[in-house]
Amino acid sequence: MEKMKAMVYRGVRKIMLEDAPRPEIIEPTDAVVRVTSTAICGSDLHIYNGDYSVDDGTIVGHEFLGVVEEVGAHVTGFEVGERVLVYPGFSCETCEPCRRQIPMGCEKGGIFGNPTPYGSIHGGQAEYVRVPFAQRIMLRIPEGLTDEDVMLVTDMLPTGYFGAENGDIKPGDTVAVFGCGPVGLCAQICARLFGPSKVFAVDLLDYRLKVAERLGSIPINASEVDASSRIRELTDGLGVNVAIEAVGAAATFYGALMSASPTSNISVIGIFAEGVELPMQTLCMTNKKITMGLPIRLPEYIPKLLNLIRAGEIDARPIISHTLPLSEGERAYKMFADRLDGALKIILKPGQ
Amino acid sequence: MEKMKAMVYRGVRKIMLEDAPRPEIIEPTDAVVRVTSTAICGSDLHIYNGDYSVDDGTIVGHEFLGVVEEVGAHVTGFEVGERVLVYPGFSCETCEPCRRQIPMGCEKGGIFGNPTPYGSIHGGQAEYVRVPFAQRIMLRIPEGLTDEDVMLVTDMLPTGYFGAENGDIKPGDTVAVFGCGPVGLCAQICARLFGPSKVFAVDLLDYRLKVAERLGSIPINASEVDASSRIRELTDGLGVNVAIEAVGAAATFYGALMSASPTSNISVIGIFAEGVELPMQTLCMTNKKITMGLPIRLPEYIPKLLNLIRAGEIDARPIISHTLPLSEGERAYKMFADRLDGALKIILKPGQ
Amino acid sequence: MEKMKAMVYRGVRKIMLEDAPRPEIIEPTDAVVRVTSTAICGSDLHIYNGDYSVDDGTIVGHEFLGVVEEVGAHVTGFEVGERVLVYPGFSCETCEPCRRQIPMGCEKGGIFGNPTPYGSIHGGQAEYVRVPFAQRIMLRIPEGLTDEDVMLVTDMLPTGYFGAENGDIKPGDTVAVFGCGPVGLCAQICARLFGPSKVFAVDLLDYRLKVAERLGSIPINASEVDASSRIRELTDGLGVNVAIEAVGAAATFYGALMSASPTSNISVIGIFAEGVELPMQTLCMTNKKITMGLPIRLPEYIPKLLNLIRAGEIDARPIISHTLPLSEGERAYKMFADRLDGALKIILKPGQ
Amino acid sequence: MEKMKAMVYRGVRKIMLEDAPRPEIIEPTDAVVRVTSTAICGSDLHIYNGDYSVDDGTIVGHEFLGVVEEVGAHVTGFEVGERVLVYPGFSCETCEPCRRQIPMGCEKGGIFGNPTPYGSIHGGQAEYVRVPFAQRIMLRIPEGLTDEDVMLVTDMLPTGYFGAENGDIKPGDTVAVFGCGPVGLCAQICARLFGPSKVFAVDLLDYRLKVAERLGSIPINASEVDASSRIRELTDGLGVNVAIEAVGAAATFYGALMSASPTSNISVIGIFAEGVELPMQTLCMTNKKITMGLPIRLPEYIPKLLNLIRAGEIDARPIISHTLPLSEGERAYKMFADRLDGALKIILKPGQ
Repeated sequence: MEKMKAMVYRGVRKIMLEDAPRPEIIEPTDAVVRVTSTAICGSDLHIYNGDYSVDDGTIVGHEFLGVVEEVGAHVTGFEVGERVLVYPGFSCETCEPCRRQIPMGCEKGGIFGNPTPYGSIHGGQAEYVRVPFAQRIMLRIPEGLTDEDVMLVTDMLPTGYFGAENGDIKPGDTVAVFGCGPVGLCAQICARLFGPSKVFAVDLLDYRLKVAERLGSIPINASEVDASSRIRELTDGLGVNVAIEAVGAAATFYGALMSASPTSNISVIGIFAEGVELPMQTLCMTNKKITMGLPIRLPEYIPKLLNLIRAGEIDARPIISHTLPLSEGERAYKMFADRLDGALKIILKPGQ
Repeated sequence: MEKMKAMVYRGVRKIMLEDAPRPEIIEPTDAVVRVTSTAICGSDLHIYNGDYSVDDGTIVGHEFLGVVEEVGAHVTGFEVGERVLVYPGFSCETCEPCRRQIPMGCEKGGIFGNPTPYGSIHGGQAEYVRVPFAQRIMLRIPEGLTDEDVMLVTDMLPTGYFGAENGDIKPGDTVAVFGCGPVGLCAQICARLFGPSKVFAVDLLDYRLKVAERLGSIPINASEVDASSRIRELTDGLGVNVAIEAVGAAATFYGALMSASPTSNISVIGIFAEGVELPMQTLCMTNKKITMGLPIRLPEYIPKLLNLIRAGEIDARPIISHTLPLSEGERAYKMFADRLDGALKIILKPGQ
Repeated sequence: MEKMKAMVYRGVRKIMLEDAPRPEIIEPTDAVVRVTSTAICGSDLHIYNGDYSVDDGTIVGHEFLGVVEEVGAHVTGFEVGERVLVYPGFSCETCEPCRRQIPMGCEKGGIFGNPTPYGSIHGGQAEYVRVPFAQRIMLRIPEGLTDEDVMLVTDMLPTGYFGAENGDIKPGDTVAVFGCGPVGLCAQICARLFGPSKVFAVDLLDYRLKVAERLGSIPINASEVDASSRIRELTDGLGVNVAIEAVGAAATFYGALMSASPTSNISVIGIFAEGVELPMQTLCMTNKKITMGLPIRLPEYIPKLLNLIRAGEIDARPIISHTLPLSEGERAYKMFADRLDGALKIILKPGQ
Repeated sequence: MEKMKAMVYRGVRKIMLEDAPRPEIIEPTDAVVRVTSTAICGSDLHIYNGDYSVDDGTIVGHEFLGVVEEVGAHVTGFEVGERVLVYPGFSCETCEPCRRQIPMGCEKGGIFGNPTPYGSIHGGQAEYVRVPFAQRIMLRIPEGLTDEDVMLVTDMLPTGYFGAENGDIKPGDTVAVFGCGPVGLCAQICARLFGPSKVFAVDLLDYRLKVAERLGSIPINASEVDASSRIRELTDGLGVNVAIEAVGAAATFYGALMSASPTSNISVIGIFAEGVELPMQTLCMTNKKITMGLPIRLPEYIPKLLNLIRAGEIDARPIISHTLPLSEGERAYKMFADRLDGALKIILKPGQ
């Protein structure tokens, strides 16, 4: 069996560079992709930090793109050698839960590098990756676009877009995004597609707020001022029309609630580890819409975002803080987890 | 000064039939209406039970209709003697908060029979009522419709409609309404306007569930079965597409959450006295939309609902449990507060 | 080669009952269905009447349902012997036009019993039919529902639903449907799912208006009165909020335009053989939305409609005027084409 | 009676600078505004060219802004001396047609400088103008904004916004605007608020296409290439998702139709003098939405657009080609009508 280099889960804060078996076609609907770029996601950190776990030995990573190495018998329309990006997860689309638009219930589905009730699925922080249902979850990368141009389309941008879309931003609206990690920054980029008059960006770290500012947002450092008070001040005392929570914590959830005007939308895209107390006694007197969840309409979002990148209308490259060889993957995890060296989105390059 | 009979707030569980000054035109935009029918609202019970209070001596009631008795100089288009229904509240529409679509902030606005930061406003459980901004908040009752036909258009039906609309019900959707008080029953009537395949009605009291069934809902008695389990059973294990909370309590809020399918909407129209814990750690993995608030678009809802009643497409009369003379108002409050004698919506008739 | 009975195209007004080869699995994604009921569509009449044609020898018909007889190797989740309804057409969903949501451009796609640029496709007015991409275009018929209950879900109801949805009907709206053939009647059934206050039904033939009335519509015989004038009268001089054209003729198109209020939607689902003059000089002063096209979102519509039938919320059986053995297919075509004997939807039963 | 300078209608191609009576408060809901800037609209040219006419002696112009000179007794919240922009038209909001949201039917309403069934209304191309229902149709100009910054908010930008909104542009969509007069250019500015990947601008005149390009559009000169073929080429053969007609002519209407993809929206904001033939026989096979009309939701659009200008998100000043004293008004009309000297939007300054 051929070997390859891969980032493998071995326990809390132990995602290790190892030799792993090189994947092969199993189902006729599979492809194998040679990974040229892969990125560490905030949700990979949840695994790294032990918030939840995958089976020992699982290759992690669901943000990756590369070159088609081999395709199964039922995969048509893709040639070996074509550059593709791969969706972060998949589902069979034929079982009962899939037909009911609940892909989370699919027995053959899951997210790369993540657990499922039926076992963990190997991910893409590796030299090669097996891609199930390849025809549906691979997308050709348009000519002229680099890996870096499209890297964030695999996960961060669709999630940010989902958050902005759920916020139902109308032209002229004011928007506040709580959190300037990669997903919060992508939410800011995507919020701008809906014609807001102002986008406020809230975070505690200046290096992240600097990137927000570069993306056109108005930065607010919540370690220096009360963010929601400041936002009210800057919106004629009214609060924003749309607040987006992109952290997954009670403090930012309340910040979003309190910065939002009486009739407003709160869109949650942060991943929470605990519950929050909802002050229904006051909320039920104001017209709020609170949304949450995961972007399940990727086949709609991803081509749209690629088109916008290709047309030069959006550019998420400022969010990439480091590009490192896969061999430095262990250091990269530590940097991102501990927010060292200005870490935002870190790209790993297998084969380098 | 002329006198009239009115239901007057005198303290907790003391809303008393008294002689009160008969109101007169104060502003040129006022009208005076002779009340022919007025109803007790669930929110009047909050005042009655001491959850919040109005100034001592305030005439209560915001659900009423009657006959134009007198109009101010700036009120055009209404003749003395015309039958009108009156919106439950008003705002000036010219101040800054009004222009920003936040009528709750209007200094000249408020809800009849309710407190405002500037003093309480006399309501319509009386022989006569002063109606500010009358031109905008009075609506002629179409010929051929009785007081009973349109009584619930003053408040309950628009609130139910708001709840159904917020739920974003699509044809074929399944819907669960938690609570079969007047507002929950109106939400069921209005939900049916959006073409659901099934409407489940949850309550603890059989006499209310009987009315729900008469309105076309599938009754579920939550004192006998676990409502959300039962609802999942009846929806092929999936849960409903839309859950409407029409009580204002943690138990029904969780019932709504738990009966809703992974991608679903929860619409809250109950008025809460306390907060609820939102299990964000699980919710953030499913695509939920939670909405709440008050129906501020009455000028859109009320004519629409009148048209539907006039066309025979909706009928809220089954929700009226009693029609009593105003002189029995004190007994009526007790009946409704203590859920005696099958009380649902109770109409009081001044002058009888 | 085994033979079966089928309705075969042989020229203008020549759709003949013949012996035809019984179809077999060709692609592993195929199924073969034994047809238990099939219906004649208004668009079959276009072929019959020579408005357009299919290749000589083509089996016609795209409205059919039956029992799974055999499934290809890639078709999972269906058992031989299960009752299924079949969508009227199909596409590969993997080619470029399909990915762009333009299924009409798919080389492997088409409508049963209809021409494509690559040759005509055999249809389902026969004892058996080959069903390409079977997994996606077959849907199990829920237990307890007869063929007649669900027959119109194969084409007429989704088209009517598309027309109603395009009309963007809001609760309380008034609606006029021009045309009471099967598709117009289905549009009336579907319009009612959106909570209209009134649905007007316009036609020239009393027997069709009687069915419209039975479905809850207000009938208007355009051979006796000017339909749009009558509709304005019955809407307080205002015109309807939504007008649906379900014939495909200039006269009904103008009827729809003229019966619609200044701010209104005109939804066209009729199939036209010629252009119409649009009076833009007056239209551009009023806020109109005119929509047209074909229901391409069948995977969304069909399960929704099945659910509504199963729940007893809609019932299209009054539209079925005749049920005949397939052996009387030639007479059935003549009856429907010439509007004899009260013909509306005619069902043919193979094997009888 | 005091006199002032004004542009007065005296016949075809005779809009003359004259002395006219200075207007005064008539109704208590009136204000008088001293005009500081007024612009010539394409629809003023229809009057100038004789396409339709106003009463002899009518002061023309509905695009203007200025300073509050005097307010009637019922106008609250505005101080003399405040800078305001004024909506192009008004309605009473209390009569039956107004309550039905059909302001065109209001007997007390109309558009400044335009005819009504009850006589023409004096407009704002003058030193002073009487503003009926002033409280509702005047809007304070935010500090820091010049007349030029907000001039196009009076009419052009809301119309362009209406066109873009009707087009239902989604992020990533491609858009084509036919016509680069002021309204077409404003449609391009507003289209960009909805996150399109590309906006194509079509016109015959290079000086207008240059402005389009400066606003971020891709210019296409229809005198040099077939515009819809070129647009298809530039959209991978597909056509645009949204086409906006901003001229009011058959040629541009067909250009819009032919450049639009099979599932697409055509939004018409041009004012037509004649009908167009709609090729329904082909259109009914593709999913099109065609909208048209006038922006009646100005109270929603205008504050939104002001906010966007104030925030620096949109800037319509490149559309202003000339700023002249009112005394050169006659020359200005000729320039704009005959497209001389690069004329686009021309501003006239009374009192200069």
